[in-house]
Amino acid sequence: MRFGINLFPTVSPAEKPAAQHFDECLRLAELAEELGYDHVKTVEHHFTPYGGYSPDPVTFLAAAAARTSTIRLVTGAVIPAFTHPAQLAGKLAMLDNISHGRLSVGFGRAFLPDEFEAFQVCIDESRSRFTEGVEACRRLWSEQDVVWDGQYHKFGPVTLLPRPFQRPHPPMLVATARTPESCEAAGAAGYGLMMVPSINKVDQVQHMLDVYRTAWDAAGHDPSTQDVHMSYTCYLAEDDREARRLGGKYSRHTNAVMARAVAAWSRTSSADYRGYRQVVEKVRTSDFDKQVAGSKVLVGGPDEVAEKVATIRGWFGDVTLSLQVISGNQPVAESIRTMRLFADHVLPRFSA
Amino acid sequence: MRFGINLFPTVSPAEKPAAQHFDECLRLAELAEELGYDHVKTVEHHFTPYGGYSPDPVTFLAAAAARTSTIRLVTGAVIPAFTHPAQLAGKLAMLDNISHGRLSVGFGRAFLPDEFEAFQVCIDESRSRFTEGVEACRRLWSEQDVVWDGQYHKFGPVTLLPRPFQRPHPPMLVATARTPESCEAAGAAGYGLMMVPSINKVDQVQHMLDVYRTAWDAAGHDPSTQDVHMSYTCYLAEDDREARRLGGKYSRHTNAVMARAVAAWSRTSSADYRGYRQVVEKVRTSDFDKQVAGSKVLVGGPDEVAEKVATIRGWFGDVTLSLQVISGNQPVAESIRTMRLFADHVLPRFSA
Repeated sequence: MRFGINLFPTVSPAEKPAAQHFDECLRLAELAEELGYDHVKTVEHHFTPYGGYSPDPVTFLAAAAARTSTIRLVTGAVIPAFTHPAQLAGKLAMLDNISHGRLSVGFGRAFLPDEFEAFQVCIDESRSRFTEGVEACRRLWSEQDVVWDGQYHKFGPVTLLPRPFQRPHPPMLVATARTPESCEAAGAAGYGLMMVPSINKVDQVQHMLDVYRTAWDAAGHDPSTQDVHMSYTCYLAEDDREARRLGGKYSRHTNAVMARAVAAWSRTSSADYRGYRQVVEKVRTSDFDKQVAGSKVLVGGPDEVAEKVATIRGWFGDVTLSLQVISGNQPVAESIRTMRLFADHVLPRFSA
Repeated sequence: MRFGINLFPTVSPAEKPAAQHFDECLRLAELAEELGYDHVKTVEHHFTPYGGYSPDPVTFLAAAAARTSTIRLVTGAVIPAFTHPAQLAGKLAMLDNISHGRLSVGFGRAFLPDEFEAFQVCIDESRSRFTEGVEACRRLWSEQDVVWDGQYHKFGPVTLLPRPFQRPHPPMLVATARTPESCEAAGAAGYGLMMVPSINKVDQVQHMLDVYRTAWDAAGHDPSTQDVHMSYTCYLAEDDREARRLGGKYSRHTNAVMARAVAAWSRTSSADYRGYRQVVEKVRTSDFDKQVAGSKVLVGGPDEVAEKVATIRGWFGDVTLSLQVISGNQPVAESIRTMRLFADHVLPRFSA
């Protein structure tokens, strides 16, 4: 298994000034490299404390690239629906070069109605814009004199500069919430998968993985390059009860922030987001103790968390875990404690 | 006067791999800070060796921010016509925080027909898109619950995150090639000005500056915050003739690269770019020795260049010079030599 950190901000300006947030995140990125983590990841969200401190993951990851030398940098995710593919592919190619090939690009469809509204993108076009954007980036990276005649963009012949460091292109992953068809498409295309297992039942996730891996094998892709990223909220303390008490507090904070960000789902419906309102509601009202007990979050003392990781490996195999270590408005010292305890006591038992 | 470096790439993948380019530029940014330069600047261009290694100046400047601690970071320029204002304002606000308030944002209209075509933006909308984009960024930075009802974008109420570090917003500058009306608008708005004096006659530049400063004063802006950036190709060697020989070689290389990038002007005309075809042609066919003699470029030995800076100060006053120190495909050692010689022999005579 591989383990990285996910720096998904869920704070507001009143809680933590942005400069402090970025200082802390750069420090955590350096620490992650020092402690042997596989990657540092961050998100694209806009306008609310739910991820809004990171409207452009590339900007933060470029700073992180300049402070590190071996750890991988992962967008989790960028949203092709909100950015022209030449802009998106261009800045990602810059980051791939600045980092000497340490970039993996996760693409997402986005799911917040308010974001679609602000960017004047119809949420029902989410899937088609995503598919077009991902494919346009892939071609801009891997081909020269690209002519693109899509539903949303037309351009070319153009040759993207800079050429990416990794050839034919950086590893690409797609984020999926719950749709087996998306998993199948990702497997067939040879893309990695980014999942949030906590929002689905274990057997649903297993089904999605089966579909993905079957499609991967059927397409003849190299099994050794398959990459499945799973995000987990992670909070460790020496003492199990202390970890649960504080982890619970930050988890409730995150849920409250998310609840406000997704409020628009109460007045939105889209065929492309079937059942989404319920999923969101489920997360928002989730029972933290049940999440702990069900290995939906990695919260507890080191031994307890190691058991949960073993459970997850038993369910899903040798996947890559992205540990959300800054949930809620937790002090950076607690993020550091989580990362150190995990690196000392859990990581060695599972890493390859 | 203040002096910064301008890292405008004019190389192709065949000449210099992008990873090497960025390694070198980060090294030059660190050196610039060490030597007491005021700022490091880079450009937004797409698809050709004329700036194409820098499709997103924010990505490079974020890496530079992480490697430096005092030098200012300047976009020279970002192009609002090609990016949604919320995306543009968002990533720039991230950079402002990552750098703890060291960002100055230069905005440009763009001028390459091929770029407008690729982004499916009508070149005749260049000015209106620029004006709308700059104003939308300013409001997203300085106000909360922004409602924007523009010609090209409609959104809100939204509150941009992160809030910029500098309040109400980072210093803003606008790039202008030759239009006195743009200078007047910039002065009235309290924005800085970015100019390329080599493409105009001295008295034209003086007229533009007069118009700008008159509008600035008339609007009652603080004279001490006025900022005029002028870009100059800069190449120094201990020996005057050696400097002219090599500076001329790189200048011709840059002109050839530019000539290919602007080729589309031969089949393009736009009321918003009156006389542009001729200006471009003039630069392309410019006589290097005349440029040296006319203080259009800062090329020569240290004393010779100091005399040129004195001439420029005499013409234009205490402006900020951005020195293009990577013109052509010059080895980084020569950029370093230029920066050291300038810092040792010229900078102390003119800096405040």
